Amino acid sequence: MSRPVVEFWYEFASTYSWLSVMRIEPLAEAAGVQVEWKPFLLGPVFMALGWNDSPFNIYPPKGRYMWRDLERLAARYGQPFRKPSGFPRNSLLAARVALVGVEEGWVAPFSRAVMSANFAEDRDIGQPAVIADILSKLGLDADAVIERAQSDDNKHALRRQTEHAAELGLFGAPSLRVGEELFWGNDRLEDALDWARGLRPA
Amino acid sequence: MSRPVVEFWYEFASTYSWLSVMRIEPLAEAAGVQVEWKPFLLGPVFMALGWNDSPFNIYPPKGRYMWRDLERLAARYGQPFRKPSGFPRNSLLAARVALVGVEEGWVAPFSRAVMSANFAEDRDIGQPAVIADILSKLGLDADAVIERAQSDDNKHALRRQTEHAAELGLFGAPSLRVGEELFWGNDRLEDALDWARGLRPA
Repeated sequence: MSRPVVEFWYEFASTYSWLSVMRIEPLAEAAGVQVEWKPFLLGPVFMALGWNDSPFNIYPPKGRYMWRDLERLAARYGQPFRKPSGFPRNSLLAARVALVGVEEGWVAPFSRAVMSANFAEDRDIGQPAVIADILSKLGLDADAVIERAQSDDNKHALRRQTEHAAELGLFGAPSLRVGEELFWGNDRLEDALDWARGLRPA
Repeated sequence: MSRPVVEFWYEFASTYSWLSVMRIEPLAEAAGVQVEWKPFLLGPVFMALGWNDSPFNIYPPKGRYMWRDLERLAARYGQPFRKPSGFPRNSLLAARVALVGVEEGWVAPFSRAVMSANFAEDRDIGQPAVIADILSKLGLDADAVIERAQSDDNKHALRRQTEHAAELGLFGAPSLRVGEELFWGNDRLEDALDWARGLRPA
């Protein structure tokens, strides 16, 4: 019998996506659930909602709260955390490379490494050199991967994936889908996995 | 030794406030935490953020998701739920009456009854007759309470409480405060109570 599947939609610039990227694999493994990694770009989704920046920047009280909330959650999960000196970071190249990683089977460790660079090491993941360094440390041919990531086919694939996110009703990240059921936010990660394995409220 | 205190800021028109109003008393009791009930109006807070309606109405994908999320959470908590035919309902009178209830010691049962009227019975809590009916069923003199609620002093008290919410950095409801520590959302209710009794991430 095949394992139940959860689609995991995440954005490399998103703070709460960071927490879920770091947490999802062992939790899904324990739940017997298969994760489909769906990197996408929140920017175009936010633009469609009328936001030309992160809502955490547009609405300062929300932003102040989010950073403190993140600090508390990082402490709870034991995740090293350093507030990025730039937010949100440009995540376009990272997302394109992650799509290649989905094809080639290394998306999970790549995504964790990019998230750690952004949210624990305060490195600018928008810099190709940072992405190349991460790829090299994973034992990959950085130049070849980045060339594939920047191909027209792959650029189109990320654009389609992002458009698909909006069509599915996504409005933030991380988001998780189980069939037609949508769960939004790191707070719903465990709920989505429970739903996938059939543990649902009456 | 006095019990630790959590300030519980809530709005009668707010869906997630409903869930926390229904849940907080037994949880706080079990945690040995004292609840300070802080009814306020989200409208002026939202106006200051540039929203002239609930964000769940302004951003339809957020709204669609919220109603489904609410349905799932209500099932989990065993709370009867009927989607209100109007949203958000006018909560001004209910909030003014709740302030009187804080003074007179019946704010908790009154708040639960108003929330049930709004979110389980689809009654229009903006109608004075609905509020009067709720007060009568609690064994209170509805006319006298409403007269006190509509006094200038009490109107000013609610205005001050709402301004205070904004000054404290609140941007949504429910919100919980423990000292200077802010927790936003029904999802953080248990965390706020844990924080109040000293259970905090390292």
